[in-house]
Amino acid sequence: MKIPTYDDMLAARARITPHIHRTPVLTSSFLDDLTGAELFFKCENFQKAGAFKVRGACNAVFGLPDDMLEKGVATHSSGNHALSLSYAAGRRGIPCHVVMPRTAPQAKKDAVIGYGGTITECEPSTSSREEVFAEVHARTGADFVHPYNDARVIAGQGTCSAELMEQVEGLDAVVAPIGGGGMISGTCLTLSHDAPDVKIYAAEPEQADDAARSFRAGRIIADDAPVTVADGLKVPLKDLTWHFVKNHVTNILTASEAEIIDAMKLIWKRMKIVMEPSSAVPLAMILKNREIFAGKRVGIIITGGNVDLDALPWMEK
Amino acid sequence: MKIPTYDDMLAARARITPHIHRTPVLTSSFLDDLTGAELFFKCENFQKAGAFKVRGACNAVFGLPDDMLEKGVATHSSGNHALSLSYAAGRRGIPCHVVMPRTAPQAKKDAVIGYGGTITECEPSTSSREEVFAEVHARTGADFVHPYNDARVIAGQGTCSAELMEQVEGLDAVVAPIGGGGMISGTCLTLSHDAPDVKIYAAEPEQADDAARSFRAGRIIADDAPVTVADGLKVPLKDLTWHFVKNHVTNILTASEAEIIDAMKLIWKRMKIVMEPSSAVPLAMILKNREIFAGKRVGIIITGGNVDLDALPWMEK
Repeated sequence: MKIPTYDDMLAARARITPHIHRTPVLTSSFLDDLTGAELFFKCENFQKAGAFKVRGACNAVFGLPDDMLEKGVATHSSGNHALSLSYAAGRRGIPCHVVMPRTAPQAKKDAVIGYGGTITECEPSTSSREEVFAEVHARTGADFVHPYNDARVIAGQGTCSAELMEQVEGLDAVVAPIGGGGMISGTCLTLSHDAPDVKIYAAEPEQADDAARSFRAGRIIADDAPVTVADGLKVPLKDLTWHFVKNHVTNILTASEAEIIDAMKLIWKRMKIVMEPSSAVPLAMILKNREIFAGKRVGIIITGGNVDLDALPWMEK
Repeated sequence: MKIPTYDDMLAARARITPHIHRTPVLTSSFLDDLTGAELFFKCENFQKAGAFKVRGACNAVFGLPDDMLEKGVATHSSGNHALSLSYAAGRRGIPCHVVMPRTAPQAKKDAVIGYGGTITECEPSTSSREEVFAEVHARTGADFVHPYNDARVIAGQGTCSAELMEQVEGLDAVVAPIGGGGMISGTCLTLSHDAPDVKIYAAEPEQADDAARSFRAGRIIADDAPVTVADGLKVPLKDLTWHFVKNHVTNILTASEAEIIDAMKLIWKRMKIVMEPSSAVPLAMILKNREIFAGKRVGIIITGGNVDLDALPWMEK
């Protein structure tokens, strides 16, 4: 297990800057009034390929040694890592092989293909995903860029908090959603060096709360196929991300499906931005834990915006 | 008829600056590739009260003489002017009476009430609106702030282009949607002084094309109750706005309902912003008139973002 360092994050930042956006931080006086906190939304939904995942993907792809360029990269992903890796590989002109659940949003599948990636479908469970991926990996010989349990990826995600700390002074806390823990680990990597007093909270769907249970149990607990509207957060912690969660996260708190959908709609309505259900989990969690955040300056990572506009969670099925 | 001057726009800018946002300009490499132009989206969907209309409304409300403060302001509006005037009146602490079509989006009615305005409903036709308004106006004695045919309102809307010209260098053209013509008139007011070589295009729904027909006929043509998804653009030109359209607009071009909805969805999907059908008419028009805009630097006014999330135009009825 190679744990990424702060210097790896700095190297990632230098490497990926030409290929990504420095995303804006938005505020909302309405949501400040509602929560009693000062909220600063780091809008990775405006990021290249529509999600923060492009940071880690670009770091892996643009750091790939020359003798691996012909075989390219491969991964499995519930969506945003898939299209981010395809985007990065497309920019470097190398092959990208992606295993995606057949139930992944069509918008994400279309985007992977649009960037030049090749999709192999699996069933929507961790076990099926890993089995199908093993076959693709063996067949192609491509370099495996894990969606989160990869030092290159975590170092890349850490660049998001580095920007946030430059954009907003005096933060008391940063809140990000947690699935496999890539964004949270990158946040821990950067803040534990740059701002060790800033508390780090992870927000998780109640219906996919394996990270919260792991945190309380002191060991990784993995569910096979959780069901939640926050489709980016269904995957379990792995050894590298568990290292950061265990050592640097203040707490992991959850929100229900209805709370997540309400928070998502509230952000769309008041902030006029398109973002994914996963990105609404932090606000949903803050709204039900006002006492923790009231009076504080809180950074929130809006992780992505690749939502299927024809299947919004508040539409009739 | 009091035609607003460039100095009126400058005075408006000084007056309203504390009450509005300087909205950002966004770009999209995807949409640039698609159109062959360089597009600069002035995002008034992020504006206070969710639309550019707050500029003109704030100019009228904060310029109101002391002896009118007790009676307040009144207007009729298909939506955004209603809630912008309510917002401005609420900030100054004066009454605001609004006549709205009963078919206006619920999100807009809720916002008017949220800002402290009082709604009287009318039928969705220009004739009914004017009749009901005459009663409200007579009863309250409030100062009538017309949604667009008002020198104070046009001077306020002109501040949007003043910002745009500071934010983007070397524009060849500016495109805005046209309904009653308030935004286009403000654009003409500012650009005819600051940048007379920049061409001004108005974009209009095919199904509410009275401004385009007026432009070709050389006189105002008004339809009573046009039907279009672009609910902010159903109202006719009036003498003041006709003055600016006639003298300064390069052309008025139209787009179909399907083209408007496609362009709206495209902007949501690729730019991750929530905006109204009306705001999509310029991109829809540019996409079908590529030869006019290819190779040009084009400013586009995204006029507002107050859409009803439960009744998006691509949802099943």
